[in-house]
Amino acid sequence: MLKSAIIGAGLMGSAMAWPLSDNGNDVRLVGTHLDDAVIKACKERNFHPRLNRQLPEHVTPFYFSEIDKALEGCSLIVSGVNSLGIGWIAEQLSSRLKPGQAVVGITKGLESGDNGSVRLFPHIIKAALPAAIRDKLSFAAIGGPCIAGELAGRRLSFVMLGADDMVTASSLAKIFKTSYYYPTPTDDLLGLEVGVALKNAYTVAVGMAYGIMDGKGGVDAAGASMHNLAAALFAQGCSEIRLILRLLGGTDWFASSLPGAGDLYVTSMGGRTVRFGRLLGSGRKFQEAREIMAGETLESIEIIKHMSKLMPVWCQKGMINQDALPLMRTLSEIIVEGRDPLLPLESFFHF
Amino acid sequence: MLKSAIIGAGLMGSAMAWPLSDNGNDVRLVGTHLDDAVIKACKERNFHPRLNRQLPEHVTPFYFSEIDKALEGCSLIVSGVNSLGIGWIAEQLSSRLKPGQAVVGITKGLESGDNGSVRLFPHIIKAALPAAIRDKLSFAAIGGPCIAGELAGRRLSFVMLGADDMVTASSLAKIFKTSYYYPTPTDDLLGLEVGVALKNAYTVAVGMAYGIMDGKGGVDAAGASMHNLAAALFAQGCSEIRLILRLLGGTDWFASSLPGAGDLYVTSMGGRTVRFGRLLGSGRKFQEAREIMAGETLESIEIIKHMSKLMPVWCQKGMINQDALPLMRTLSEIIVEGRDPLLPLESFFHF
Repeated sequence: MLKSAIIGAGLMGSAMAWPLSDNGNDVRLVGTHLDDAVIKACKERNFHPRLNRQLPEHVTPFYFSEIDKALEGCSLIVSGVNSLGIGWIAEQLSSRLKPGQAVVGITKGLESGDNGSVRLFPHIIKAALPAAIRDKLSFAAIGGPCIAGELAGRRLSFVMLGADDMVTASSLAKIFKTSYYYPTPTDDLLGLEVGVALKNAYTVAVGMAYGIMDGKGGVDAAGASMHNLAAALFAQGCSEIRLILRLLGGTDWFASSLPGAGDLYVTSMGGRTVRFGRLLGSGRKFQEAREIMAGETLESIEIIKHMSKLMPVWCQKGMINQDALPLMRTLSEIIVEGRDPLLPLESFFHF
Repeated sequence: MLKSAIIGAGLMGSAMAWPLSDNGNDVRLVGTHLDDAVIKACKERNFHPRLNRQLPEHVTPFYFSEIDKALEGCSLIVSGVNSLGIGWIAEQLSSRLKPGQAVVGITKGLESGDNGSVRLFPHIIKAALPAAIRDKLSFAAIGGPCIAGELAGRRLSFVMLGADDMVTASSLAKIFKTSYYYPTPTDDLLGLEVGVALKNAYTVAVGMAYGIMDGKGGVDAAGASMHNLAAALFAQGCSEIRLILRLLGGTDWFASSLPGAGDLYVTSMGGRTVRFGRLLGSGRKFQEAREIMAGETLESIEIIKHMSKLMPVWCQKGMINQDALPLMRTLSEIIVEGRDPLLPLESFFHF
C-alpha cells in the first residue's frame, strides 16, 4: 500500500485511479490548471463528470494549487497530461520530485530528436529534471489498448508497462495489476512508446476509409460499407509500425501485439482520432478538418508532424528508401503540406 | 482476355466475377448442386439474390448440370466452394481439368497433416487429381480482408494472391487486378493460407469479448463497452498467428499485414464468425451456440478442430511448450472438449 499521485484529471489519467485504489493504495488525483471544474465536482460530489462515475474509495481530489500537499509522501507519480503538456509537467515536477520516486507516464506521443532519433516522453521528462535528482528516480510508461471509460468501469483491459529495465517494469506492473487490469511488463520502453504513438497516426488512416465511403454517399444500396479498405489501411499501418520499430531497434513483433494491432483496433472503434480521419477521407483538407474539431486534442497530428521530420533523415542516412512508409508519407503530406487527402493505392504492400 | 469459370455461387465465389468481368474476361458462374435457386435468379433476371446486385456484363450463369459446357475453353478456374466442399470440388475437377489451366482457390481453411504438418487447400485439390495431370496445372489461392458484398460493389479491396512460385502468383494477380481490387502476389502460399485460416479462429475470440459484455448486461450505465478486452484478444490472436507462422516456416510478418491483422479486423466487423464467438462469450457452451446457428457455415470450427490435433504434436516434437498458444488452446477446449467458455487471462502476452 503506497501513496500515489495522478497529475492531470483527464479521462485516462483519472481512470488510473481505479486499479490503484482497488489495490488499496492512497490515490491523490491532482487536476491541472485546466481541470478545476472536474476537481470541483470530484470534491463536492465524489463524482468524476468526464468519466461519469463515482470515484473509488481511496481517491482524494486536489486542485492544482494544492499540488505540494498532494505530493507529500508519494512514492508513485502518474503523469496523466496529454502530449501538449509534457513540457509543462516536466517543469512542474522538476522542483518537486524526491529521490526514490517512480514517475509513470500514460501520454501517447513521440518527438523527433537529433540525427533521426526518437525522443520518448519519459526520457524528455527525465532530461528536464535537475541533474542531482534525475538518476535517483525510476521512469516508466503505460501503453496499449485501453479506453479510459472501460478501465474506470473495471472492465478487462490488457496493457504494457515499459521501463528501461525489467526490474523496474515488473515491480511497477505489480502495483497496478488487479483482477481486471493486466499490465505486462517490458524493458523495451522504446518499442512500447513508439508503437502506441504510431497507432494514433495510423488510426487517422483507418478513419479515412469510412470518410471515403461518406464521400461516395455512405453504405451503398446493397449494404456495402468500406471495411475492406479500412482493413487494408489497418494492415498497412501495422506493417509500417513493424518497419519503424525495426529501424529504431524496438521489438518488431509489438506491431502484432498490444502496442500495435491491439491498440490500433481499440482506437479505431471510435473517438476523436478516427473521426478526424473520417473528415479527411470525405475530402476535407487538413485545416478544414482541424477547424471542425477545434478544441479537441489530436495527438495524431503532433505525431505525424514529428514523423515528417524523421522520415527524410532516415532516407538521407540510407535507413529507408524513398518509397518506404507510403501511408505515413501520405499522412504527412496531408497534414504538414496541406495536400488533398488521396491514398497512394499502388504503393501499399510492397514489403 | 480469357475464359474463366467460377465454381460455387456463394458470396465470395460470385463476387470474384466482378474484377474478372471488369477486366473483359469471359466469366462462367457455375453453381454447385446447392446453388440452383441462385443460378435460376441469375439466369432469369441477371440478378444475384445473395449479393443483391445485377451481374456484370461478361458473366454467364450455369447450373451445376451444365458444368462441362461451362468449362469449355477455360484457362482459369476459381474454386469458390466453402471448406466443407474441398473434397467434393477435387472430385469434380479430377476428370475435367486440362493441362495448362490455373486453379485459384478462395476457400479459407487448413487441415492437419502427418507429423504436425499443415495441408493447404490448393495442395489438397492437387493431390486428389490424377498423376498425369496434376503437374501440368497451376495452383494458387486468394486471401485477405475482403467482404464479398464490398468487392461486388467495386469498393477498394486489398488481398494477397499466393502460389508456390512468384511467376505464377504475379501473372495470376494481373488477371484479377482492377482499379478497385489489388491482389499482392506472394510465393508464400503457406503463410497466406495459414494466416487467413487462423484469423477465422481468432475472430471467434474477439466475438467472445462482446459476448462477455452481453453476459454482464451490455454497455454499462456510463457507456463502457468491452473494446479493451476485444483488442487484447485481437492482439493475442495476431501474436499467436505470428508464432504459428514461424513454427511452420511461413512469413511471420504476415501476422501484422493483410492475412493477419487486416483480415482479423474485417472479419471482426460483423458476420457469422464474430456472432458465434459472441454466443460463446455470453456463456453458452459450444453445442448450444452451434444449434442456435444451425445451417450456417462456420469455417472457424473446422480450423480450431484441426489446430486441436496439431498442437499436441507440436508439443511432443518440442516445437512449442505446453503454455504456448493459450488462446487457441482455450478455443480448442471450448469447441472440441465442450468446456465452459472461460478465458485464461493470466496466460496471455507471455511471449
